[in-house]
Amino acid sequence: MSQTITIPVDEATRLSVDLFVSQGMSEADATASVWPLIDGEMMGIATHGLIRVPAYAKRLRIGGIDAKGKIAVERRAPSLALVDGGNATGTAIATRALDTALEMVAESGIAFVGCRHSNHCGALIPYGLKAVEAGYIMVGGTNASTTMPPWGGAEARIGNNPICFAAPVEGGEHFLLDMAMSVAARGKIRAAQTAGEKIPAGWAVDDQGRPTTDPAAALKGFLSPMGGHKGSGMSQAIDILCGALNGAQFLTGISSWLDDPQAPSNLGHFFLLLDPGRLIGKKAFSEAMARFRNIILTTPPADPKQPVMLPGQREQQRRRQAIANGMAVPEDLVDEIKALAG
Amino acid sequence: MSQTITIPVDEATRLSVDLFVSQGMSEADATASVWPLIDGEMMGIATHGLIRVPAYAKRLRIGGIDAKGKIAVERRAPSLALVDGGNATGTAIATRALDTALEMVAESGIAFVGCRHSNHCGALIPYGLKAVEAGYIMVGGTNASTTMPPWGGAEARIGNNPICFAAPVEGGEHFLLDMAMSVAARGKIRAAQTAGEKIPAGWAVDDQGRPTTDPAAALKGFLSPMGGHKGSGMSQAIDILCGALNGAQFLTGISSWLDDPQAPSNLGHFFLLLDPGRLIGKKAFSEAMARFRNIILTTPPADPKQPVMLPGQREQQRRRQAIANGMAVPEDLVDEIKALAG
Repeated sequence: MSQTITIPVDEATRLSVDLFVSQGMSEADATASVWPLIDGEMMGIATHGLIRVPAYAKRLRIGGIDAKGKIAVERRAPSLALVDGGNATGTAIATRALDTALEMVAESGIAFVGCRHSNHCGALIPYGLKAVEAGYIMVGGTNASTTMPPWGGAEARIGNNPICFAAPVEGGEHFLLDMAMSVAARGKIRAAQTAGEKIPAGWAVDDQGRPTTDPAAALKGFLSPMGGHKGSGMSQAIDILCGALNGAQFLTGISSWLDDPQAPSNLGHFFLLLDPGRLIGKKAFSEAMARFRNIILTTPPADPKQPVMLPGQREQQRRRQAIANGMAVPEDLVDEIKALAG
Repeated sequence: MSQTITIPVDEATRLSVDLFVSQGMSEADATASVWPLIDGEMMGIATHGLIRVPAYAKRLRIGGIDAKGKIAVERRAPSLALVDGGNATGTAIATRALDTALEMVAESGIAFVGCRHSNHCGALIPYGLKAVEAGYIMVGGTNASTTMPPWGGAEARIGNNPICFAAPVEGGEHFLLDMAMSVAARGKIRAAQTAGEKIPAGWAVDDQGRPTTDPAAALKGFLSPMGGHKGSGMSQAIDILCGALNGAQFLTGISSWLDDPQAPSNLGHFFLLLDPGRLIGKKAFSEAMARFRNIILTTPPADPKQPVMLPGQREQQRRRQAIANGMAVPEDLVDEIKALAG
């Protein structure tokens, strides 16, 4: 582990944009590619934050992602569009899709935009924050390379496909839920192995698909979907909305960017926006959400030291702190970004 | 337990419609109210099947549900509508909402219809089947009275709010996922108690919100959401789409039909329909879904005797058997329906 340093948000953005520009990208495309990663880092989602900047850059260098990829938007109906990402960065493609959806929802009250020929698009919660700040409800999803067996299976054929639900709440943090489909991340299983501890039942299966509490067997096997058959089914539902519906790859058709970094991923995403002003009305929705927040936040906690929070509340607090005080990141990560741009 | 008898689908429908008509409902409204319950029963979802017919009838009798409730559809945009259910049966309201969405999606490629002033609407999977048989993707949800604490809480403030994802698959069973937000149903905890067994970790918390494997403590406490904070967040997201967005009640605002059967529930639902023909195209989507199904169904199973299935596959098989051979139901349930229609 290297030293941790505190870096202002603007500086981290500048360094990251410079790196992508050094790989042949325009300033505008680099800016669109970088912001979701910086936002993810600000919110404390380090796995989808600054660490992805050199990872994207390496794929840009070997052509796995196209620095000059053209993003094409095709409007299919007043509330429907398909985006062909042209193998640009997934973050730039998702940004373009969300911006298209924001234009469409303002006109027709609802918009669904699907993406194909895309790549990893960072965490979904930054897109959710952007949508709620414009006053809309967002449901967004992306597919991913396979890491889990479908329920009852013994081979990885479904992805950890995250989904994000975002709803505006005035006068406090917004409702921002961003969740992947596995019970736990692989990192937590590695941590248990290092600590010499068993993992809880339900986290993983071994390489034969049998439940295990042994971290070594789990790491040779597969993550389990949350809620068993429920998370397995939901991963597939998200894949249909991201992949099959938009002409992107899905399930085992998605190549792994770890195993094949030079191959286009052809990932798919979707963004659905709804305007509460066109349904129950802006004021009534705002009042309802204030009541909603109050009911959740005043729930008696199981542990008096741990008050009940709204999804995404902590992430938005971290983001404000990062904007005010900068972000704590590994020094060698910043050095790597500078060196790659070199 | 009474005897089980086999009853033809048409006869079960006829008896149920007669009962609702005897409570003051028109033949057309009774027909719209009954079919989702019969479909649920056919698919083997007995908790949302024929057993609900006398339950609805008792609420009709005491005015908890209005046998003459007027359902009003308000189109807010080419792809948006709000349905005021007028405290009719939730099944008739949801049917009207889905029919409205089916009309709108045929014109504009996407439709979102929200419902308020509604009641229990049965299982969601019958609506999903109806949508996919018309060639559309459906995402539907309903809220419900509170049964779980939000994550970290020690008081029931969120419901088991189910969601259904449905996608058409030609030449076999469709993709029909219908799932509630708890890890397990209360019935399974009662079964463990009867058998003198512990329940798995993660199923429930005690009345102080502490994790428990003791079925007695669990039954005094609360069900746990699937995936912990994930299911807790998703229950809230569904409640926003069903309740806050449409002007229905949500969270603790929903009265329990067990505790207050005479009070209108003011539940909310939503139905989102998408036309694949307006996105990637009908033929390309059909081919993609055939490939999707094949990848899932050919997954090597963990247990060779338990092949991997698509969500909803078993339910559709059961439904075909019920249509061909009738449904096995408790004899005293049929007697109760006949007696109430008196």
